[in-house]
Amino acid sequence: MKTNILENKSVAQIEIVKVKGDISSYFTDDIAVEEPLEIRVSSGLEGQRETKNISVTMRTPGNDAELAVGFLFTEGIISGYQQIKKVEHSPKECSRNSQNIIVVELIEGFAPQLMKSDRNFYTTSSCGVCGKSSIESIRTVSPFQNPEKQNHIIPLEILYQLSGNLQSFQNNFSATGGIHASGIFDLKGNLLALREDVGRHNALDKLIGHALFTEKLPLEDKILVLSGRASFELIQKAAMAGISIVAAIGAPSSLALDLAKEFDMTLLGFLRDNRFNIYNQSRFLEIIMK
Amino acid sequence: MKTNILENKSVAQIEIVKVKGDISSYFTDDIAVEEPLEIRVSSGLEGQRETKNISVTMRTPGNDAELAVGFLFTEGIISGYQQIKKVEHSPKECSRNSQNIIVVELIEGFAPQLMKSDRNFYTTSSCGVCGKSSIESIRTVSPFQNPEKQNHIIPLEILYQLSGNLQSFQNNFSATGGIHASGIFDLKGNLLALREDVGRHNALDKLIGHALFTEKLPLEDKILVLSGRASFELIQKAAMAGISIVAAIGAPSSLALDLAKEFDMTLLGFLRDNRFNIYNQSRFLEIIMK
Repeated sequence: MKTNILENKSVAQIEIVKVKGDISSYFTDDIAVEEPLEIRVSSGLEGQRETKNISVTMRTPGNDAELAVGFLFTEGIISGYQQIKKVEHSPKECSRNSQNIIVVELIEGFAPQLMKSDRNFYTTSSCGVCGKSSIESIRTVSPFQNPEKQNHIIPLEILYQLSGNLQSFQNNFSATGGIHASGIFDLKGNLLALREDVGRHNALDKLIGHALFTEKLPLEDKILVLSGRASFELIQKAAMAGISIVAAIGAPSSLALDLAKEFDMTLLGFLRDNRFNIYNQSRFLEIIMK
Repeated sequence: MKTNILENKSVAQIEIVKVKGDISSYFTDDIAVEEPLEIRVSSGLEGQRETKNISVTMRTPGNDAELAVGFLFTEGIISGYQQIKKVEHSPKECSRNSQNIIVVELIEGFAPQLMKSDRNFYTTSSCGVCGKSSIESIRTVSPFQNPEKQNHIIPLEILYQLSGNLQSFQNNFSATGGIHASGIFDLKGNLLALREDVGRHNALDKLIGHALFTEKLPLEDKILVLSGRASFELIQKAAMAGISIVAAIGAPSSLALDLAKEFDMTLLGFLRDNRFNIYNQSRFLEIIMK
């Protein structure tokens, strides 16, 4: 079995503004890289090889061959090392990054155990292998693609209250320690709605579903507070709902930051204990530091 | 727009053993419920209605209508409240739980924006809407479905070292604060391999891919340590690799626990600061408490 894999960077350096108490300073910081990886399987007899797209996962580059093969194994598509002939990136097909597509070539005659997908499942927008094309598709699809942006002003003390307020309203986390929350606050720091789930994307979908039911979309003049990390998928959902300020208690990923910049969305991270990092600040938002 | 939704429990009470220092005691604790939700869309003209399966998400029950509608909106399948006629559970089709299938009925004449899935994506095993059927499919598919289990003995102090050892070997977390890790340790507490990723399922797939490449499967006499929470998906992957001891630094979900019991897998949670909870203990594992 051969692998022909170039390792990619898993951490990127970025310029951020760190705010602590009432002091803000520029800082070079590390951010976890998040990029899509499309996993393909090539199988069949010589001359009749067939390549199928199996999955797209948002991953941190590095150990891509292990990831692809581990995924195929844990999904029961292959059952052993001996079934693999070669693993390599397919560099020419993704304009964004030459290491975002990986092909696992199986030995001749071994048939991968692919489930019949006769249940007609939908391919979500995160399945676009290029972050770039996903970003473009959000622009096209969002009904709030060109929201009329207002100038907003937030005093620092309002931001510092958000994480504590989110936690104090979380019903289930304190009991189980295992549930993510998404909360929507107004610019004065009042909690308008909060939803919880074991899946962070579900908590946010519930919150946006609530806003849709109560005809509150777009959420342009609101703050979305996330109990954990800010991944690409969460920022994508926030952008769809027209949210322009996202504050995460955890860290953002590189692709989440790219998307926030693209949408002129304010993205704060590590918001806790009277400090936070500004990863992106909208032209329309002013934070009063005194 | 009508909703016809019964709310489901989001937290369950279970009996666990809490271990702190060298004292263990029985305890009734809360655990976050995780159950699959299959989201379906019904559309078309009267008499020609068509129902499609759109997605399966592993969610905490509660606010299911918001979750379904929020998902359809953030994926760009619907763009407004007015397009929805009715949202209701489809109780008769899932034997496990009557609230695991939800149907969003769209108004006549509105065509949902479904992407053409001509890229032939594979439906993963988590897409089985019944946790039960997923569990059965793992039994069938895993090459280690009936591993020959050995009796294992672990002293308490080895368990207490694991979380610290995982963190000290994590290269990227300290830099970014945003990366999950999975580590494999032997029964003496030695780290054998560690992988990191923004996605916890990817970190574990990388680790299992590594074991596959180095012909180390099944990992029956090893300990899998997870830097965060233990979801169904992670326990499913661990079961596929024949892992019999999982220790998570965070909380497990209800469905993860069901699966661990089904596979006689030891499942520990909240392993940090010289304490942990025993959610399930294999008949083959003895923990030496002194």
